[in-house]
Amino acid sequence: MPDYKAFRVELADKIAHVQINRPEKVNAMNADFWKEIITIFQEIEENDEVRAVVLSGAGKHFSSGIDLMMLASVGAQLGPDAGRNARSLRRKILELQAAFNAVDACSKPVLAAIQGYCLGGAIDLVSACDMRYSTLDAQFSIKEIDIGMAADVGTLQRLPRIIGDGMMRELAYTGRTIDGAEAERLGLVNRTFADQESLLEGVFAIAREIAAKSPIAVRGTKEMIRYMRDHRVDDGLEYIATWNAAMLQSADLRVAMTAHMSKQKPEFAD
Amino acid sequence: MPDYKAFRVELADKIAHVQINRPEKVNAMNADFWKEIITIFQEIEENDEVRAVVLSGAGKHFSSGIDLMMLASVGAQLGPDAGRNARSLRRKILELQAAFNAVDACSKPVLAAIQGYCLGGAIDLVSACDMRYSTLDAQFSIKEIDIGMAADVGTLQRLPRIIGDGMMRELAYTGRTIDGAEAERLGLVNRTFADQESLLEGVFAIAREIAAKSPIAVRGTKEMIRYMRDHRVDDGLEYIATWNAAMLQSADLRVAMTAHMSKQKPEFAD
Amino acid sequence: MPDYKAFRVELADKIAHVQINRPEKVNAMNADFWKEIITIFQEIEENDEVRAVVLSGAGKHFSSGIDLMMLASVGAQLGPDAGRNARSLRRKILELQAAFNAVDACSKPVLAAIQGYCLGGAIDLVSACDMRYSTLDAQFSIKEIDIGMAADVGTLQRLPRIIGDGMMRELAYTGRTIDGAEAERLGLVNRTFADQESLLEGVFAIAREIAAKSPIAVRGTKEMIRYMRDHRVDDGLEYIATWNAAMLQSADLRVAMTAHMSKQKPEFAD
Amino acid sequence: MPDYKAFRVELADKIAHVQINRPEKVNAMNADFWKEIITIFQEIEENDEVRAVVLSGAGKHFSSGIDLMMLASVGAQLGPDAGRNARSLRRKILELQAAFNAVDACSKPVLAAIQGYCLGGAIDLVSACDMRYSTLDAQFSIKEIDIGMAADVGTLQRLPRIIGDGMMRELAYTGRTIDGAEAERLGLVNRTFADQESLLEGVFAIAREIAAKSPIAVRGTKEMIRYMRDHRVDDGLEYIATWNAAMLQSADLRVAMTAHMSKQKPEFAD
Amino acid sequence: MPDYKAFRVELADKIAHVQINRPEKVNAMNADFWKEIITIFQEIEENDEVRAVVLSGAGKHFSSGIDLMMLASVGAQLGPDAGRNARSLRRKILELQAAFNAVDACSKPVLAAIQGYCLGGAIDLVSACDMRYSTLDAQFSIKEIDIGMAADVGTLQRLPRIIGDGMMRELAYTGRTIDGAEAERLGLVNRTFADQESLLEGVFAIAREIAAKSPIAVRGTKEMIRYMRDHRVDDGLEYIATWNAAMLQSADLRVAMTAHMSKQKPEFAD
Amino acid sequence: MPDYKAFRVELADKIAHVQINRPEKVNAMNADFWKEIITIFQEIEENDEVRAVVLSGAGKHFSSGIDLMMLASVGAQLGPDAGRNARSLRRKILELQAAFNAVDACSKPVLAAIQGYCLGGAIDLVSACDMRYSTLDAQFSIKEIDIGMAADVGTLQRLPRIIGDGMMRELAYTGRTIDGAEAERLGLVNRTFADQESLLEGVFAIAREIAAKSPIAVRGTKEMIRYMRDHRVDDGLEYIATWNAAMLQSADLRVAMTAHMSKQKPEFAD
Repeated sequence: MPDYKAFRVELADKIAHVQINRPEKVNAMNADFWKEIITIFQEIEENDEVRAVVLSGAGKHFSSGIDLMMLASVGAQLGPDAGRNARSLRRKILELQAAFNAVDACSKPVLAAIQGYCLGGAIDLVSACDMRYSTLDAQFSIKEIDIGMAADVGTLQRLPRIIGDGMMRELAYTGRTIDGAEAERLGLVNRTFADQESLLEGVFAIAREIAAKSPIAVRGTKEMIRYMRDHRVDDGLEYIATWNAAMLQSADLRVAMTAHMSKQKPEFAD
Repeated sequence: MPDYKAFRVELADKIAHVQINRPEKVNAMNADFWKEIITIFQEIEENDEVRAVVLSGAGKHFSSGIDLMMLASVGAQLGPDAGRNARSLRRKILELQAAFNAVDACSKPVLAAIQGYCLGGAIDLVSACDMRYSTLDAQFSIKEIDIGMAADVGTLQRLPRIIGDGMMRELAYTGRTIDGAEAERLGLVNRTFADQESLLEGVFAIAREIAAKSPIAVRGTKEMIRYMRDHRVDDGLEYIATWNAAMLQSADLRVAMTAHMSKQKPEFAD
Repeated sequence: MPDYKAFRVELADKIAHVQINRPEKVNAMNADFWKEIITIFQEIEENDEVRAVVLSGAGKHFSSGIDLMMLASVGAQLGPDAGRNARSLRRKILELQAAFNAVDACSKPVLAAIQGYCLGGAIDLVSACDMRYSTLDAQFSIKEIDIGMAADVGTLQRLPRIIGDGMMRELAYTGRTIDGAEAERLGLVNRTFADQESLLEGVFAIAREIAAKSPIAVRGTKEMIRYMRDHRVDDGLEYIATWNAAMLQSADLRVAMTAHMSKQKPEFAD
Repeated sequence: MPDYKAFRVELADKIAHVQINRPEKVNAMNADFWKEIITIFQEIEENDEVRAVVLSGAGKHFSSGIDLMMLASVGAQLGPDAGRNARSLRRKILELQAAFNAVDACSKPVLAAIQGYCLGGAIDLVSACDMRYSTLDAQFSIKEIDIGMAADVGTLQRLPRIIGDGMMRELAYTGRTIDGAEAERLGLVNRTFADQESLLEGVFAIAREIAAKSPIAVRGTKEMIRYMRDHRVDDGLEYIATWNAAMLQSADLRVAMTAHMSKQKPEFAD
Repeated sequence: MPDYKAFRVELADKIAHVQINRPEKVNAMNADFWKEIITIFQEIEENDEVRAVVLSGAGKHFSSGIDLMMLASVGAQLGPDAGRNARSLRRKILELQAAFNAVDACSKPVLAAIQGYCLGGAIDLVSACDMRYSTLDAQFSIKEIDIGMAADVGTLQRLPRIIGDGMMRELAYTGRTIDGAEAERLGLVNRTFADQESLLEGVFAIAREIAAKSPIAVRGTKEMIRYMRDHRVDDGLEYIATWNAAMLQSADLRVAMTAHMSKQKPEFAD
Repeated sequence: MPDYKAFRVELADKIAHVQINRPEKVNAMNADFWKEIITIFQEIEENDEVRAVVLSGAGKHFSSGIDLMMLASVGAQLGPDAGRNARSLRRKILELQAAFNAVDACSKPVLAAIQGYCLGGAIDLVSACDMRYSTLDAQFSIKEIDIGMAADVGTLQRLPRIIGDGMMRELAYTGRTIDGAEAERLGLVNRTFADQESLLEGVFAIAREIAAKSPIAVRGTKEMIRYMRDHRVDDGLEYIATWNAAMLQSADLRVAMTAHMSKQKPEFAD
């Protein structure tokens, strides 16, 4: 993996560790961040060796969200024609969204490990991950409402499917901060850990478990769950039938069953 | 705000308090109720001064649901031709639905404050609100099953998105009564309070918080969450990009950021 | 009800008890199972006397899922042309799906009573039921991932609507086993019971309650909740208006209201 | 029918004739027009005596589209905040759309009879009708492009379903004027007539034919075709099954079949 | 192929000829018809030797539609409870729809050859076929409107996709009879022929052409076109990518390309 | 514009002329083609000076479709595991689709000018354009069926919306070649021209007309028509209301109306 300015990326044991690496700026999402995250997930996508991804933040906080300097610079570029401004703002928003869409569309499971602040854009980001885990004292807030805007890079679109409609609205309208314990009760995170160390340990343990499964099976499973977020049950059934028509011809099924019979750990090709 | 027969409506501090006001009839929904609620929410919609709505019931109970006299009178109008009966019943049901659709479509957040009975039609009503809060001893029941009909003014359509599919079916098939505590566990209400007084106090506190935010941002946030109830993630992302292309040109963003920098409370125009 | 090889089916008090009956094989789903379940639910569908269904497993376990012999035999039929293999695999999967679609589409509520193992295909099956109840020590696992495949008879399609997106993914990627208590917390089961006896007693009590309601009203309620799993709120409102335009002309409404007035138990025709 | 400023409305032989009546202004759509058309179609909707509607324009032209004065006055109301302007523009557009939605949603067939100019907003209007008929020398143009805007009251939404995608784009991008003959070739109108007199004669003849059919059957037929514009084939099949479950119990079926056997003209109740 | 009462079915040169065979009853669709057509298309589906289907009517007419006796017998079974009548009518309609759904869902192309009357239910039937061809003097009418009902076995659902929205409504509201020439102009039939003999000759020639192509490729092509009738372009692109991921591994691609290079006619396995 | 291997791209008078430039290979789509077309349309997208695009083919033919060498090389990369082959084939197909999606998604109108052969992949390409124009003797064929595969880069997905369902299937199942005249009758091309010279002249004339309109209005119009291909009428109406809420604040509306009043040609900023 090449070097990045806003991230540190490591690959070991078939797991890519993508870490936001601007701890001195509370991991705020600056221009580098938005550009590099697309490249990183493109490389992860194309590298068959990677089977799971852990996304974390260096330092005391996961991330304070979008860098306010960057937001201000967008405003500074507006001209006198409201229609042409709208055209360029729309382009800009779609561009930012594309960054988190790359996380969402990644064919390998992405696990977010969250400590400290997880504010504004950071919620948009973890909503695009497969699963979220946090420390007990992590702090979550849909901060966008406090800077006078509706969240537009994914929180309002993806989070309702994760935590349901009722509490979603309260959090989005008020920007109320919740901690890890409440986040777990709401289903926003799957599990909480006492501190950052045990958090990373726990998340990597789950990632390793996933990496040991058939990559063909994991990929199909993820594709189907993503598909169901937006499609009908009958469409989903037809889609998996078509998908498995090819995938069940893979050797992984045989490898898994042989291992199962002989009570051994199966080894799958990438 | 004008006078109403079935409601008392007050506007203060940018919050409209809409109170069902037939306590001697357990706030049953009579013909006045169904007509007036549309007018009330139309006025709320058009009045830019209103930024949040609290919906409550006067007296010991929130509401016992549709007035059975009214239901009986619908039956009395049926004639000998089953097809023409169907035509007029369908019209009537769509008309009743329109009343709660006006609540659902209101561009300002609507918070329901529920004590005592919340039965049948009352569940249809609170399902159309943004958030629900109740006393611990409130009593909820999808009562329609007990009068021999499938709920047709919104419960079966909106509640599954709020409490999920599994328990939804049990409650709808059996009409089982649940209290505030169970309602909170299921996500039907966001929080419970010890008694009616603290309930109203708590709900108004949340409403005030919302009313202090940028009305442009709250409106956009609500529109997006409503949109996501029925649309795909990719459609939602395009929609918010188009929406914010105009709204981010509003002064509210600047007002909010200036206040944020100077650690002061922002003041937004209506 | 006729005799079956993989099931025992009994009808009493308007409740059909469908019991998987291969306890010596941990109720694994063999060829008989897949064929007979369609016939059974067809008969239940057409028999107006049946008003609710309890689905259980004989012996210590609910079911260990698809019979591995059967899976192996599918593999054995593959030939040299990958395209033609895909054609026959797709057909086979659609055929298996049709079995559980028959459970899902049954117009009477189906209650699953689960003890012991509920693995792989058994989760696909109970996801197609209306409600799920289990013993505290029941064991659930989306086992398909361990035999190298993406679940393709309904789990990935139906379960996210029941337990939400976040934990769904963890369970599907890892195949982690959860017990009844965790299943209840996630909403996978509605309630847990201490042991198998109290489980069946409890489930039959709920089924009897449902069977005492108007069958016209229960059918409409189920049709609407199913419809909402895949449709928009506005479409759902139009659909129930059209549905009730006919159904509210039924005598059940009058029977229920008369009973309600006179505080008596109503008796509904089948 | 009451008196209107922008329309003349007559009801005879179960056919409502709605005529835009500002010939001295080329039937341009002014504020009266937009308000009154909603009332008119509401009355038509509720009056069971009306079975078909003919929509025409008084004088030499059908209509030149939206009144430019009215458009200018909208612009004049814009203030300094681009976000709040967007809020009020969006409201205004939705309000104008509602006028033509009332035509589209009318449960009785609406036949447009078009001569002379049919420009801009007039195309939006006739796209919301069931069928369109014109004189040979009628002139159609999607004029909005020439006043610097994308058509926003229905043309871009409804016309592609009527004339297909390819030519739709050419007409919308260029604003090219086509005559009745080309409109017929494209399917924009069903038939052309030599002059205005034979046009009205022909259209009323078709309307009378429709008015002689069972109103229950015509209403169902229209509801289904409208539904199919936006829904799947399988959803449409379920919907008509639910619809006809009530409607086939109407006497009209028997009336029609008796008439059919005895070779007589059936007479249907309103 | 076994013997049928309402049909004659022959299989030759990989083409199944399904002929409605009640010429003395103008090929009216009686109870035998509705039952047998499902069996016939099931057999066709499972028989890999069949690559295309021609559907025709014996004698002077294609078919006069549903047998009125059969329709009358449905009416005769109605009882006193309008709700329970609705339940059984809905079931009956879904059952009839299932017959034509089997034609629509058949994975091999179905070509309708139409002469003489093609009325009511016959239009529902041919709308479910892939392509329609007729004699010049064939007569088409959406006859249902004349027996007081909205067509409910497929015409209103499938035909708008074939002939567009505008003329569809005129034909459905008026029941107007059109001949083969107008049907061709509207796109209802692909081509007309001078008489029944040349019609069958022409249709079989096209069927033979299709039967000579790769059955894997034809099946995929049909599945995709059917899918696009009800799905979005982006969903369709993903679906074909998943489908072809398996199918492009078939030998047919190589067989076709080799034949193409050597300018020879390819021979594909069933 | 930079230099390309498979294309010649010129920009003049606000129109980009994109010409496939491998006439000696009948403009077959090789690896360069697929890579460069994405870059070209990205540049066009970002260059506000471009207002319309003409897509043509150098030499006697528009294009013979995908280069068979390229197709063969894909086959050559397949390994022994059918599941992993499926994974890489799916990726490859999605990659090719992305090339034509870039044409489809381009916010400026794309006009295809077609002479000679337009076969296989060339139909996929022109189906992704806004409008198509051809010489009278152009030759169109959905050639994929003849190389043993279902078309998978857009024809089956986009063409049915352009030419309707009935003839679409005939052309796709048989691969029958049609000329420009028949293509015009079917709506596949908007207009035919006598020869290549008058074709280009005619297409550029239309492009110039479009380029003279408000670019804000053209962009909105295209976005809406594209949106309607896949969305409901009510969603489309809401979307345009939101879109125009920003765009109607542009100066173009005023520029256009002023020009209209003074009968002068308006000049719009890019």
